[in-house]
Amino acid sequence: MPVNPSSVKLLKEYIEKGWEFHIIDMLYDLEPVEIADLIESLDEESRGKFFLLLDVETASDVISELSQDSREDVLDDISDTELTRIVEDMNSDDAADLLGDLHAERAERILAALGPRESSEIKALLSYPEDSAGGIMQRELVSVHPNTTVDDVVAQIRQVHTEIDNIHQAYVVDSKGVLVGTVPLVKLVLSKPETAVSQIMDIDPLTVPVTMDQEEVARLFSKYDKVVMPVVDEEGMLLGRITIDDIVDIMEEEATEDMFRFAGAQEDLLSSSIVRNATTRIPWLFVCWLGGVLASVLIRGFEEDLSKIVGLAAFMPIILGMGGNVGTQSIALVVRGIATGVTSERNFFAVLLRQMGVGLVLGFMFGFMLWAIAFIMFPDDLRISLVIGFSIMFSMALAAFLGTFLPIMFYKLNQDPAVASGPFVTTAMDVLAVGSYLMISAIFLF
Amino acid sequence: MPVNPSSVKLLKEYIEKGWEFHIIDMLYDLEPVEIADLIESLDEESRGKFFLLLDVETASDVISELSQDSREDVLDDISDTELTRIVEDMNSDDAADLLGDLHAERAERILAALGPRESSEIKALLSYPEDSAGGIMQRELVSVHPNTTVDDVVAQIRQVHTEIDNIHQAYVVDSKGVLVGTVPLVKLVLSKPETAVSQIMDIDPLTVPVTMDQEEVARLFSKYDKVVMPVVDEEGMLLGRITIDDIVDIMEEEATEDMFRFAGAQEDLLSSSIVRNATTRIPWLFVCWLGGVLASVLIRGFEEDLSKIVGLAAFMPIILGMGGNVGTQSIALVVRGIATGVTSERNFFAVLLRQMGVGLVLGFMFGFMLWAIAFIMFPDDLRISLVIGFSIMFSMALAAFLGTFLPIMFYKLNQDPAVASGPFVTTAMDVLAVGSYLMISAIFLF
Repeated sequence: MPVNPSSVKLLKEYIEKGWEFHIIDMLYDLEPVEIADLIESLDEESRGKFFLLLDVETASDVISELSQDSREDVLDDISDTELTRIVEDMNSDDAADLLGDLHAERAERILAALGPRESSEIKALLSYPEDSAGGIMQRELVSVHPNTTVDDVVAQIRQVHTEIDNIHQAYVVDSKGVLVGTVPLVKLVLSKPETAVSQIMDIDPLTVPVTMDQEEVARLFSKYDKVVMPVVDEEGMLLGRITIDDIVDIMEEEATEDMFRFAGAQEDLLSSSIVRNATTRIPWLFVCWLGGVLASVLIRGFEEDLSKIVGLAAFMPIILGMGGNVGTQSIALVVRGIATGVTSERNFFAVLLRQMGVGLVLGFMFGFMLWAIAFIMFPDDLRISLVIGFSIMFSMALAAFLGTFLPIMFYKLNQDPAVASGPFVTTAMDVLAVGSYLMISAIFLF
Repeated sequence: MPVNPSSVKLLKEYIEKGWEFHIIDMLYDLEPVEIADLIESLDEESRGKFFLLLDVETASDVISELSQDSREDVLDDISDTELTRIVEDMNSDDAADLLGDLHAERAERILAALGPRESSEIKALLSYPEDSAGGIMQRELVSVHPNTTVDDVVAQIRQVHTEIDNIHQAYVVDSKGVLVGTVPLVKLVLSKPETAVSQIMDIDPLTVPVTMDQEEVARLFSKYDKVVMPVVDEEGMLLGRITIDDIVDIMEEEATEDMFRFAGAQEDLLSSSIVRNATTRIPWLFVCWLGGVLASVLIRGFEEDLSKIVGLAAFMPIILGMGGNVGTQSIALVVRGIATGVTSERNFFAVLLRQMGVGLVLGFMFGFMLWAIAFIMFPDDLRISLVIGFSIMFSMALAAFLGTFLPIMFYKLNQDPAVASGPFVTTAMDVLAVGSYLMISAIFLF
């Protein structure tokens, strides 16, 4: 059921009147994510009240689906005891995420109140970097020894299947805990009860090292069409598993992050105030503003020269704009290329060469076209139109080079290549374009 | 095994010498996607030769993983008979994709050579739009009647499990073919053989309408953390299923597409020639170029006025740049907001109002800062600095409004909202910014 305004209105009425049974009735058919949607559309005050009406199991599913803002509202309104019970019911990865978001003191209190096994599992997860395989894996899984029979595996699954979502396979480990194989559910379905899992397991399964970056993990899932993958340490010990739903979230996050880097933005569209929204955009804009002021000062410095040839200034916007556009194209191609694995170590140099070639071809073409137009405007002095045509060509070729080189460089320095699309670099490219236009003019015309 | 240069070199040697057994030996441990990677790194000529050495089953898996270019190379080199055998072994969705890419005549020949059932299944799939649920679903699935016992379902899975990848659940349909429930594998594992599936099935499962747009489908998968979903027609008849691996591909495609739209680019980074690469970028750049020329002409028209106040032209780049940046930020926020479901019908108006507010706040702030700088430059005539400050404010507020309004408008018109980030719109915004600066100057200064 999608969240519609009338159900939200009804819900608010029930909450005000305290009609708990009506509320519980209303929630009966809803998925956790739908209940989370409902909470999002309530005002701050009602969120906590409403959340307290959920049973522990539902609450633990719903809380992982909430946005940062609503989650905070809800967490403020529930006691440590209630929160502990909710955390107990969560998957270890979600629990670790939640505790990682709490104030350190409160997180400590909750960890202390949890059972020793749960608390140590969550602590282990919290020790990995948030954006590594260790930070996104969950500890809950079905692991068995090689000589376990299919029947015994099924018995084990029966015990845990209400606690563990999405059991896609059982993991086979040796006595040291080293992963030796995986058994997909379909094989359990099709095998005789007395078969040992060692006979039906897939040996040498693809694994994720616990230290791998989450983007790299996402690429592995995408490349090998996996739904779940085991996470291991350097010795091959089974530490946890990663499921595709978390990978889907990561892919969405990364795509959003890349595009925001591109646009120099970062904000929640609705959840924060106008002033807070504006504030997050200021740093980016300020850099562009500084670059713009620098360009103005540059232009002012050449003003006496510029004013000798009326009309030279009229070509500034196009030279700036075309350089910026070619640069942005190259950055987008390389950033997405790296994100999807098309561009990698093995072909960086080829990509760079090719993009430089593309920049030259495009620069020559548009430079020639602009020269023709400038020649019509300044028929008496060939030098003027040549300077204009050459400047746009130079600015486009330079932009194609930098737009390819910089993301690759950032990647090599273990930075997100999308940083190259940020305002520092694009502003620097703008200033370079204006500067080189003025320099070229000064050299050949004055 | 990742593809490394030495194995590629070895492979080329084997192909030249025709050492088939060595090649087959080498492929033994590889996944289809890794064999596809190997093929990508071969030259055009070797690709077909190598592909012909694969057995039909491997070939049918590998061909779906190839890039457009290599796929064409390979398809050119194999006979219709061989291709028919490969298509017979493919999943219906992959087969339909492949046939959709072939020349119409060859596709007809292959379809005619296939068995009647396979051919009609593929034809059915080809009849749906490529980017709809029907275009991405596969027909292969396990469907049973409500009174089937678990034992019989298992027997049916045993028959088909080598042909159907990733059986996550069995579908329960009534005598008319209407979907009435789903049975996840884990329930089959845990239930007694004689149980009827109607007793263990999940009723009222979430379904995908066959006409739904693939981006919408991806949002459903992401929202509900699904691994597989059944596709139904208007009457609820089960038509096929969509698996998460296709959704992951779609998400990657869409993220790439959005970013390329943003940058006005569209190309394969390595697979095509420099000239072809350049050509795909020309349309976008040409639009920007035309806008730039238009801006130049506008500026030339006001030249006499502009030259009266030396220095007014120096602020053109910053006014243009800041407007462009704010507009781009707003477009990115709205486009990703729509893609991830944060922005939707229910809050368009709120988002628009908020973005306009943000534009005004930012415009006022940066306008004031630029006014201060311009006032230092032109201390004698307050009007000049006021015009400059007001122009940048106006251009930023307008850009924030258009950057929000246009993607929403495109979405409402059933177009991809990312179209708004394309060069037509951004160029129009540039020209508007230059034009309004000149107009404001003309009104207040001359």
